[in-house]
Amino acid sequence: MHQGRCVNLLEQPLDRIRQWLASFDTIISDCDGVIWLGDNVIEGAVDTMRQLKRLGKQIYLCTNNSTRTRQQLYEKAHNMGFDIDADHIISSSYATAAYLKARNFQKKVYVIGTAGITDELEAVGIKHTGVGPDIMSGRLTAYIKSGFRPDTDIGAVVVGFDVHFSFCKMIKASVYLSDPKCLFLATNIDERFPITGMVIPDAGSIVRTVQTCTAREPVVIGKPNRSICEWLIKSGRIEPARTLMIGDCCGSDILLGRNCGFQTLLVGTGVNQLSDVNVWKKSCDPEDKKLVPDVYLPRLADLLALI
Amino acid sequence: MHQGRCVNLLEQPLDRIRQWLASFDTIISDCDGVIWLGDNVIEGAVDTMRQLKRLGKQIYLCTNNSTRTRQQLYEKAHNMGFDIDADHIISSSYATAAYLKARNFQKKVYVIGTAGITDELEAVGIKHTGVGPDIMSGRLTAYIKSGFRPDTDIGAVVVGFDVHFSFCKMIKASVYLSDPKCLFLATNIDERFPITGMVIPDAGSIVRTVQTCTAREPVVIGKPNRSICEWLIKSGRIEPARTLMIGDCCGSDILLGRNCGFQTLLVGTGVNQLSDVNVWKKSCDPEDKKLVPDVYLPRLADLLALI
Repeated sequence: MHQGRCVNLLEQPLDRIRQWLASFDTIISDCDGVIWLGDNVIEGAVDTMRQLKRLGKQIYLCTNNSTRTRQQLYEKAHNMGFDIDADHIISSSYATAAYLKARNFQKKVYVIGTAGITDELEAVGIKHTGVGPDIMSGRLTAYIKSGFRPDTDIGAVVVGFDVHFSFCKMIKASVYLSDPKCLFLATNIDERFPITGMVIPDAGSIVRTVQTCTAREPVVIGKPNRSICEWLIKSGRIEPARTLMIGDCCGSDILLGRNCGFQTLLVGTGVNQLSDVNVWKKSCDPEDKKLVPDVYLPRLADLLALI
Repeated sequence: MHQGRCVNLLEQPLDRIRQWLASFDTIISDCDGVIWLGDNVIEGAVDTMRQLKRLGKQIYLCTNNSTRTRQQLYEKAHNMGFDIDADHIISSSYATAAYLKARNFQKKVYVIGTAGITDELEAVGIKHTGVGPDIMSGRLTAYIKSGFRPDTDIGAVVVGFDVHFSFCKMIKASVYLSDPKCLFLATNIDERFPITGMVIPDAGSIVRTVQTCTAREPVVIGKPNRSICEWLIKSGRIEPARTLMIGDCCGSDILLGRNCGFQTLLVGTGVNQLSDVNVWKKSCDPEDKKLVPDVYLPRLADLLALI
């Protein structure tokens, strides 16, 4: 009803808000910056989600974080008090496994990432090479001669966040991806994230290296790419036009909504603020326009008063 | 005399060749693909260089390889039979140290690279953090809390080829480069190189990661950037218009020549062939035109018959 206009819901008359509330049956909500911040729940988020569920909305949580399995994300949400079904968790690692499964992938995956990815691959019966440290102990020439025997069964390279990312992993990805038949998937391409005053490189920085040394382009599964919700839409479990995407980051959440044909709501408790949106609204670049949400609220909890 | 026309010297009359030979006093030659291939000298290269020196040409060798010091490169050339002065070696690591020295850099350098870089820094009295493995033993949260104390004296991050490249190094570079006053230098940005059928990621792949996770652009020292020859030109040791750049790779060697105002000669014993040049000649993109050398020879040794 307000497509790409970024209407502030707090300034709307009640009948318009009711009309908007009736226009969706499904909510897909980002996690960090919307319902929690790291290990702390955002005030009022639990009550708001509970109330929306009472109104009959089905609620999904969606995250680009590939380091946790759906089960771990479910437990985190559950422990914070969110009443979410375990199979209503959408993660980039789950969606990566679903992507390969949907394509009847039968070979083995070389993984640069964490158990968050390999556990999801195992859950759908896909073989992988494991995760963890992989360091060069001797000289490069010795490594090339005898330190690394490529696994001929590898049919895909999956790259996500990995604190054990190393030069050996770059070499292996290069060797496997030199075969054009080998798939190249990235769980997500977020470039960095802040933790207690430090900037930590995210999966996107690792993906970029692999892109550069292999001269290959990955299929990106995570937001804002449609792939993360592909399995949900294809199975008919949600109707895109009657789905609301809630997020704090326009380049990821709001653009995902746009790419999937969802309605969109931006909340101001995370990455982007109204001031960012106002810049994009005035931009001549159509790519910027796509970042503008339909509606805006300062906090998710503001919905509670409007319901 | 043939600027950017890629004249095949073998097809020129003798008086034109003599005229061309008299048009330069200095030769700067790339190494790999021109005078050697890995550990093997290219046939006729030693004799050709000796003859050019007899004609009174001063000869420099220039390489983007940052893993060896000038002294090590000198020894390699010397052992193969090349009669080159030790201070006529131009390497990206030496030029990186020279760049910092010329700017009176007084702080400490965080190095992602090899002793090829740190030895050159030490030679000009610049402090650094050392090189080698740097791996995460515990969890990321523990590492952030207690595993890494930034060195407050760091004033530059230098990135080159490093088989011990790791996620910890990505974090450190991110932290140091979050200070806009901290310099960001790349020895070179070659993306990959082939070894015995394998594709090995080169410094450019590592630099790209650091660019992505820091959102900073590096000063690139290596070819085709002028910086690698800056110290040579500024000291008045060579006259650019009377200098011939010889190389096998147009994007690196020939473009360096163009960027420095040198004459250029492409030899066909390495990366690029005449067929590549013919494509660029016909291109409408001015950037492609810059890749076209002045003259061409199949092999460096072909010069011997023309002298």
